[in-house]
Amino acid sequence: MTANNPVQHSHPSQESRAPVTILGLGPMGRALAGAFLKAGHPTTVWNRSAGKATALVAQGASLAGTAAEAALASPLVIVCVLDYDAVHAIIRPLGDALKGRTLVNLTADAPFRARQTAEWAAEHEIHYLDGAIMTPTTTIGQSSAVVLYSGPESVYQAHRHTLASIGGTSSYLGEDPGRAAAYDVSLLDIYWTSISGYIHALTLAKSENISAKELLPFAQGISSILPNIMAGLAEQVDNRQYPGHGSNLLSAAAGMKHIIETALSHGIDTSVLTAANDIALRAIDDGHGADGFSFLTEILQKK
Amino acid sequence: MTANNPVQHSHPSQESRAPVTILGLGPMGRALAGAFLKAGHPTTVWNRSAGKATALVAQGASLAGTAAEAALASPLVIVCVLDYDAVHAIIRPLGDALKGRTLVNLTADAPFRARQTAEWAAEHEIHYLDGAIMTPTTTIGQSSAVVLYSGPESVYQAHRHTLASIGGTSSYLGEDPGRAAAYDVSLLDIYWTSISGYIHALTLAKSENISAKELLPFAQGISSILPNIMAGLAEQVDNRQYPGHGSNLLSAAAGMKHIIETALSHGIDTSVLTAANDIALRAIDDGHGADGFSFLTEILQKK
Ligand SMILES: NC(=O)c1ccc[n+]([C@@H]2O[C@H](COP(=O)([O-])OP(=O)(O)OC[C@H]3O[C@@H](n4cnc5c(N)ncnc54)[C@H](OP(=O)(O)O)[C@@H]3O)[C@@H](O)[C@H]2O)c1
Ligand SMILES: NC(=O)c1ccc[n+]([C@@H]2O[C@H](COP(=O)([O-])OP(=O)(O)OC[C@H]3O[C@@H](n4cnc5c(N)ncnc54)[C@H](OP(=O)(O)O)[C@@H]3O)[C@@H](O)[C@H]2O)c1
Repeated sequence: MTANNPVQHSHPSQESRAPVTILGLGPMGRALAGAFLKAGHPTTVWNRSAGKATALVAQGASLAGTAAEAALASPLVIVCVLDYDAVHAIIRPLGDALKGRTLVNLTADAPFRARQTAEWAAEHEIHYLDGAIMTPTTTIGQSSAVVLYSGPESVYQAHRHTLASIGGTSSYLGEDPGRAAAYDVSLLDIYWTSISGYIHALTLAKSENISAKELLPFAQGISSILPNIMAGLAEQVDNRQYPGHGSNLLSAAAGMKHIIETALSHGIDTSVLTAANDIALRAIDDGHGADGFSFLTEILQKK
Repeated sequence: MTANNPVQHSHPSQESRAPVTILGLGPMGRALAGAFLKAGHPTTVWNRSAGKATALVAQGASLAGTAAEAALASPLVIVCVLDYDAVHAIIRPLGDALKGRTLVNLTADAPFRARQTAEWAAEHEIHYLDGAIMTPTTTIGQSSAVVLYSGPESVYQAHRHTLASIGGTSSYLGEDPGRAAAYDVSLLDIYWTSISGYIHALTLAKSENISAKELLPFAQGISSILPNIMAGLAEQVDNRQYPGHGSNLLSAAAGMKHIIETALSHGIDTSVLTAANDIALRAIDDGHGADGFSFLTEILQKK
């Protein structure tokens, strides 16, 4: 851009985009920075330890020497690190630098910690949004990314266009800053429990001379029927009615027993499914054998 | 049909279909009998306790007075009851009645029991196929049914047309009579662990004021990304290579810890996820924190 041609922008897309700072350059921080750069945002990056920014700088990122410098470079500062202890280690000294700016915390952690971080931000006059990224690094900047946000709606509205460079679908879940994290832990609960079950099933199949490749199409078939079953169970749980006519806790426990017996006969750890079965057996002991599996929501909530 | 018109069949579909006997009229036995009747098979039914056959008899089924009478009524006898103890209670006295006939056992149980039942059948000169129904009663007779079979291929080939009236997809998995049950327990392992995780997630979400209906579309979204992730993990397990670059055991354990902490803060049982996390922690203690989650197949297989 030259003085005699002030309105002609040589990089119109870049110059029309809001500057963004990324604190934390793990795999996800790097993916986020890459997506903002690709969308044309002036992007400042910082990481606790050196050497993570080389590729990003080659793509046009500015590497800040300190976290404070990085925070001062943009009105919108995104932090994405291991957990909220790491977030606090980074942001506690940045109260002044972040004042009046927006901090979007895309680090995964428990909802109560998101609420604590929001309180700290409010005390320091920092606009705060909490977010949760639900999809892997490879989806960032693509249509398959899924990101959840919660916190003041005005803050979300002010930055949603910039945040859209992360790609995919973003959902604003409400003013409670813990809400995105609450969805996140609930969804990761499904994810990690399911993946644990799948890995266990592959171990069990192998002990029966079934390769993972042989089991895979059938396992994928199970996944494909889950969304429908989930919808039915969701309705039962919201209505607190647990009909057992299609399949009840007694038959579920009988099914789990066959799996556990088979795994034990091959010397395979059964701790996860035994824990699941014990919950069903507790419900059966309480006289709920003829109820549906969704009754277990009542058993799991102890207080 | 009249004597002077012997080749014109008033019920051509029925008269061209092989007779079938169903032993056991629980929800699944009734669904099976209904499907065979609908497809036009002369269908004989029997159940230990009375009163389960009324609707089927109204649809044209013959109710046998004893299990032996039922077995003698058809060359193909299907048994589908609670478990193999129930199967044996029914078939042990039927050695003579079943001799030379085909017994298809669609009861779910452990693979070693299927192999034991096949041995008993061989001793009594009974052709034996073991099967596993992977889908609910509502799918029976529909295109969405999934049924697995194993045992002598000649027996499967001889009856596959008749068995096709159960509907959907049938897969023949090989000569080992335990193979269908081995797939069954492996797939039910995925199913029950996943459903346990989902029910736990709904409990957790509720404690955070998120209704099941609100969580549902995101939970279904998780399900929709699983088939791809499953394919990647299957390849790693078959190759016994467990790369952790996308996501490793340390980050998985950190994720599970947030879920467990959140659940504990609401007084929710965490036994299932704690068991899953403990397996990951064992692998981390053994120095595998940077490996991928699929490494846990090596930890689960203890001997
Ligand atoms: N990776 C994914 O596919 C994915 C998907 C969805 C959500 N997430 C979430 O995104 C967040 C970041 O994940 P990630 O994959 O990038 O890797 P990660 O291993 O969770 O985090 C690595 C980052 O955290 C920093 N860090 C750790 N402890 C720190 C401390 N005490 N002080 C300052 N910085 C610290 C690291 O800095 P150093 O380089 O100096 O160690 C690095 O920048 C996590 O909350 C994760 O759950 C990740
Ligand atoms: N329901 C489903 O959606 C579904 C899906 C896939 C697979 N399966 C499998 O299909 C099989 C049958 O399931 P189901 O849903 O029909 O109900 P079930 O409750 O598993 O089985 C009920 C049947 O078992 C009989 N039975 C139980 N103990 C017996 C004994 N000691 N002697 C003789 N008969 C006995 C019952 O007879 P009485 O009526 O006399 O008690 C009844 O006929 C099970 O192995 C199940 O895992 C079911």
